[in-house]
Amino acid sequence: MDFFEIVKQRYSHKEKFLADFVPLEDLEKIAEVGLLAPNGVNRQLIHLIILPNRDVLDLLCKVSPTSGLETAPAAIAILTDTTITPTDRVNFEKEDYSAALGNMSLAAVALGYVSVWLDSPYFDPQKEQQAKEVLQVPEKYKLWAVMPIGKPDGEGSRREKLPFSQRVSYNVFSMERPE
Amino acid sequence: MDFFEIVKQRYSHKEKFLADFVPLEDLEKIAEVGLLAPNGVNRQLIHLIILPNRDVLDLLCKVSPTSGLETAPAAIAILTDTTITPTDRVNFEKEDYSAALGNMSLAAVALGYVSVWLDSPYFDPQKEQQAKEVLQVPEKYKLWAVMPIGKPDGEGSRREKLPFSQRVSYNVFSMERPE
Repeated sequence: MDFFEIVKQRYSHKEKFLADFVPLEDLEKIAEVGLLAPNGVNRQLIHLIILPNRDVLDLLCKVSPTSGLETAPAAIAILTDTTITPTDRVNFEKEDYSAALGNMSLAAVALGYVSVWLDSPYFDPQKEQQAKEVLQVPEKYKLWAVMPIGKPDGEGSRREKLPFSQRVSYNVFSMERPE
Repeated sequence: MDFFEIVKQRYSHKEKFLADFVPLEDLEKIAEVGLLAPNGVNRQLIHLIILPNRDVLDLLCKVSPTSGLETAPAAIAILTDTTITPTDRVNFEKEDYSAALGNMSLAAVALGYVSVWLDSPYFDPQKEQQAKEVLQVPEKYKLWAVMPIGKPDGEGSRREKLPFSQRVSYNVFSMERPE
């Protein structure tokens, strides 16, 4: 599929997934795209956990029951090693994980899947800690989000987008397109 | 080009660019990819400024002389409207801008260009303010980064990446690939 078509097809799938198994090789292709995303100072502090079936997902749902996570046949959890960035340097953990998930959401579409970026289940530090225990994640890592991946059960809802012309300027702010 | 090939070809081009003009239509395609990236609660708080020639880029270089920005024939500046997120809600500005830039870096490759994510020139609030003045950006917007875009002048250097197997677990942290 053409790159720009992939971008247009991507949306956040918050509805049900089909139970169809996602091959491990496909999840690995998606993970690799995440690891190849731009990252600050090439620190490579992201760690991914591939969840290829419901076993661990069911346990994560007990921590934070979340639409999307409840029916997905597979997912990828995204962590950062919080000890890599020197304390006197700018910390790019949030930028890095966000660029990685953004790119992974396109990779999912390229392989015929839908996905959704679930961070809100782990905003509460206690929930994050419980999910880290499920995933057996060492203390020094932060769990940012889990991305369910699979085939959609029916058409997912797509959100309205503002017109391009309202969100883009040329040369300086609010300047319109040059002729 | 195949999506996964685009991902593999992408790198941060910190070296010189050729002076070759980038058609406005190509910059708009890249901008659109940024605006279609996942964003928190669909707030759509990103604004992009397309810089299609050296006029404004030369002024930005006076604020923060930066390799990459100094020779690029074009760029896209990325801002967020800091007043859209309700003060009692989670603010996704950094996630949103990062996902947008990550996706834009792939769009650039899809069209035959290289790019680089320049945020460090605007870490200093005074520099950010000066750059916002150059770009005539209203107070309520934050300038996060500028992404130079163009053809590379020679082969850019690519950073070493850790092996996939060191950065990915299966089912739980540190568990190896299931057979």
